[in-house]
Amino acid sequence: MNDHSRSTPRSGGRAARRAARAAALPEHLRPVRPGLEGGTYEPLGQQDMERIHAAALDALETIGLADAPPSGIDYLVSAGCALGDDGRIRFPRALVEDTIARANRSVTLYSRDGKTDLELSGNRVHYGTAGAAVSMVDAQGRNYRDSTVQDLHDAARICEQLDNIHFVQRPMVCRDIADNREMDLNTIYACCSGTYKHIGTSFTDPSYVAPAMEMLHMIAGGEDKWRERPFVSNSNCFVVPPMKFATESCQVMEECIKAGMPVLLLSAGMAGATAPSTIAGAIVQATAECLAGLVYVNAVSPGAPAVIGTWPFGLDLRTGAMSVGSGEQALLSAGCAQMHKFYDMPGGAAAGASDAKLPDMQAGWEQMCSNIMAGLSGLNMVYEAAGMHASLLGFCFESLILGDDLIGQALRCVRGIEVNDDTLAVDQIAEVCLGGPGHYLGTDATLGRMQADYVYPTLGDRTSPKEWAELGKPDLIARATARKEEILGQPSPARFDPALDARIRSRFNIHLPA
Amino acid sequence: MNDHSRSTPRSGGRAARRAARAAALPEHLRPVRPGLEGGTYEPLGQQDMERIHAAALDALETIGLADAPPSGIDYLVSAGCALGDDGRIRFPRALVEDTIARANRSVTLYSRDGKTDLELSGNRVHYGTAGAAVSMVDAQGRNYRDSTVQDLHDAARICEQLDNIHFVQRPMVCRDIADNREMDLNTIYACCSGTYKHIGTSFTDPSYVAPAMEMLHMIAGGEDKWRERPFVSNSNCFVVPPMKFATESCQVMEECIKAGMPVLLLSAGMAGATAPSTIAGAIVQATAECLAGLVYVNAVSPGAPAVIGTWPFGLDLRTGAMSVGSGEQALLSAGCAQMHKFYDMPGGAAAGASDAKLPDMQAGWEQMCSNIMAGLSGLNMVYEAAGMHASLLGFCFESLILGDDLIGQALRCVRGIEVNDDTLAVDQIAEVCLGGPGHYLGTDATLGRMQADYVYPTLGDRTSPKEWAELGKPDLIARATARKEEILGQPSPARFDPALDARIRSRFNIHLPA
Repeated sequence: MNDHSRSTPRSGGRAARRAARAAALPEHLRPVRPGLEGGTYEPLGQQDMERIHAAALDALETIGLADAPPSGIDYLVSAGCALGDDGRIRFPRALVEDTIARANRSVTLYSRDGKTDLELSGNRVHYGTAGAAVSMVDAQGRNYRDSTVQDLHDAARICEQLDNIHFVQRPMVCRDIADNREMDLNTIYACCSGTYKHIGTSFTDPSYVAPAMEMLHMIAGGEDKWRERPFVSNSNCFVVPPMKFATESCQVMEECIKAGMPVLLLSAGMAGATAPSTIAGAIVQATAECLAGLVYVNAVSPGAPAVIGTWPFGLDLRTGAMSVGSGEQALLSAGCAQMHKFYDMPGGAAAGASDAKLPDMQAGWEQMCSNIMAGLSGLNMVYEAAGMHASLLGFCFESLILGDDLIGQALRCVRGIEVNDDTLAVDQIAEVCLGGPGHYLGTDATLGRMQADYVYPTLGDRTSPKEWAELGKPDLIARATARKEEILGQPSPARFDPALDARIRSRFNIHLPA
Repeated sequence: MNDHSRSTPRSGGRAARRAARAAALPEHLRPVRPGLEGGTYEPLGQQDMERIHAAALDALETIGLADAPPSGIDYLVSAGCALGDDGRIRFPRALVEDTIARANRSVTLYSRDGKTDLELSGNRVHYGTAGAAVSMVDAQGRNYRDSTVQDLHDAARICEQLDNIHFVQRPMVCRDIADNREMDLNTIYACCSGTYKHIGTSFTDPSYVAPAMEMLHMIAGGEDKWRERPFVSNSNCFVVPPMKFATESCQVMEECIKAGMPVLLLSAGMAGATAPSTIAGAIVQATAECLAGLVYVNAVSPGAPAVIGTWPFGLDLRTGAMSVGSGEQALLSAGCAQMHKFYDMPGGAAAGASDAKLPDMQAGWEQMCSNIMAGLSGLNMVYEAAGMHASLLGFCFESLILGDDLIGQALRCVRGIEVNDDTLAVDQIAEVCLGGPGHYLGTDATLGRMQADYVYPTLGDRTSPKEWAELGKPDLIARATARKEEILGQPSPARFDPALDARIRSRFNIHLPA
């Protein structure tokens, strides 16, 4: 068939190519990587973005935000905001524009081992988990049950093994820990002991930040080491849309900033409930709220690392129930991504979540729709990109594992079409057609692209119906379950060394067994 | 909760809204429609497209195409092509550019009843079935079996009921009809008696066109009526890539053109086998081949309706097997769509097909990936958009039915984000926040968007885990099977009237039972 396969027994050619491909490629040769550049999809025109920006400025200047904590009022008034008789903080246009001009153009979110740092800027795209699911989806048993700290740890361990999951924002809450302080501290422990990748958490009370920092300093090897490379960021739901500060969460944010922890300025309005029902309107409000947050952050500490977190969600307007798997949702997140580019600021939004209860065909199409649109629009941080079901209520390991394949494909699309003399291939066409073999199989040009250009699914099935039948008609979910059990059956590479672990356990009430 | 729901018993509000939504909307009020404008996704820059164009012209001028039939050689040489000593037809740049300049900027593909005509131009997007699957997928039995003429008829009947399937290119071959001539004639009968939507077929031999036209004239009510509104087009695989004419298929094409049947100039190379392995190279070759076809068509009959059919497919380079569900495939088709825009000519490509054997999560993500990218890139005809599995070998009714939901969502994304004073909603935000209810639920602005802006899935599930459990945890595929049985249990609205049917049956050997 070709020179390369002829050098091995014929029946071994295919198997040999499979084996060659199975060997891990060095990072720089991989067809997809974290931080690939999106931006080829632009749901908003330049004028659209200018109008959204103008509307957000209008809203900030004339409507403003209520419910800032006293400390926040002080910061914001000192920065140039006006406190109205109605208790609302209003933002002069010049202050907002000045803050945008001086804001960070990039933020680095560190990994614990330095191998998977995330450089957020421009159109660089990263996918990861996120959320606050309250249930675990048992895909085999078709059942929902409360999520636990062990589930969270297991999720982190699985993410550690998935190339296309670039960060681990905690996707579910530990419902087996009743005390909120213990839950927050165990959340950090469970994630950090499961993965080296960048971690996201979310504090429920400002007073929990100090003990968490104590734990993080222990893990980092000292406060200076932590401040040099903070490997945990905080998702701050600093607003309660529409246009109200979340008082306690703002206090959390102040604590995080002072402790050197990057913050995600998370505005999670629901279009039709807590945000306008129009896509443009929901983007306007989220943009306004996040710009308010940006002024706040920079008033606390100029240049503190903050990610713009415009996370408007969709709603099923017939029922008033949240809906995150819709086309409207995909447009909301992609439109937000473009506004981040408009401001040239690092940003994130939610995509890849499904309304389906199980990892079925609906889950596949919903997860791909918003994930691909987020990636193509150049979203820096695609949160909730894998494993999320039931409109954010359930997290599913099988879906997470299959999500790695799904996101790999999305990343291939984000990488896009390379056009140069080599790829245009006119010489190749001539060589093949004019006296050549009449096909491209096995040419050096083709074999050279086999690994560098093509993404192969890990569990996605490409067999012929005949091969598939011979293999016993493998079930996609059963294969994902097997992979899950394989990963969880192995020791966690990110586990703390025993001495550190003992110190943490003597200082904190750690729920995970040692 | 809001003024509108208060007017009915509280528990009835949600049910009432569901019921209101269940009533069919008039076409012009629907949130999605055939022909929505894409084009917000541009995988190729202007310079990229110019380079691809230049490379295609190079290939046509220096490599040319082999194997034209004698009639084709006459047409092409008369038009200005050169026949080389090597038997290849080469195309001077000026001739190709002149043909492009004079080519149709739009093509109408007619429906039989005038209700679902397709206007192909600019970025207008339409989704439909296509292909030549040899198997039917039994989703419940997890089995593949030979496809039959009854399956084809049933597929047409199902498509007739699905709003987001805009045309019915025959998706599978009738393997229970051994004689090719009978198969081609029964293909047309089975499709036309199942749907009023525009139909695509593909003739295996030039001599079958004449009897097929006889049948189509009978169905249309005369040759003049047929020529006025030809409701069947022919998918012409007029090339055998790389760069060879398919001799017989070219003869078929000549017959179709003379009979007033629109043709799809279909170039179906496989990247890495019959086309270069690079995405750009595969697009160059497909573009060159289709431009050759365009010169051919216009040499036979200037201005004859032709759709540019750059259909490069992906390959799994490890195994040499076709792969249509990959990110590479999505890029191939989206890149081709952009080349159609570059030429401002109506075009189609393949998207939405899956490598998965069953309608599972993989099928969902693969089908959405290329369908959404094709739509966003403004592809006029998205062929193979629903129901196709096993890398085009299998067609599945459940998947087709679920594809209607999937494509509805894709169309919502194609429709995009409307930005105007109304949708920017600053007044609404002010009203809600400043002395208003503090939320947008039930406001007139929200309720007004409920039907006009939001696409609701027919079978896609949005229940909460609790509701879902109460409903007995409905299975997505089982629901699709029930819908299939419901549709096929009803009489076909497109069935011929008995007199016409009797005349057709007396003239042709029709395999479908009367």
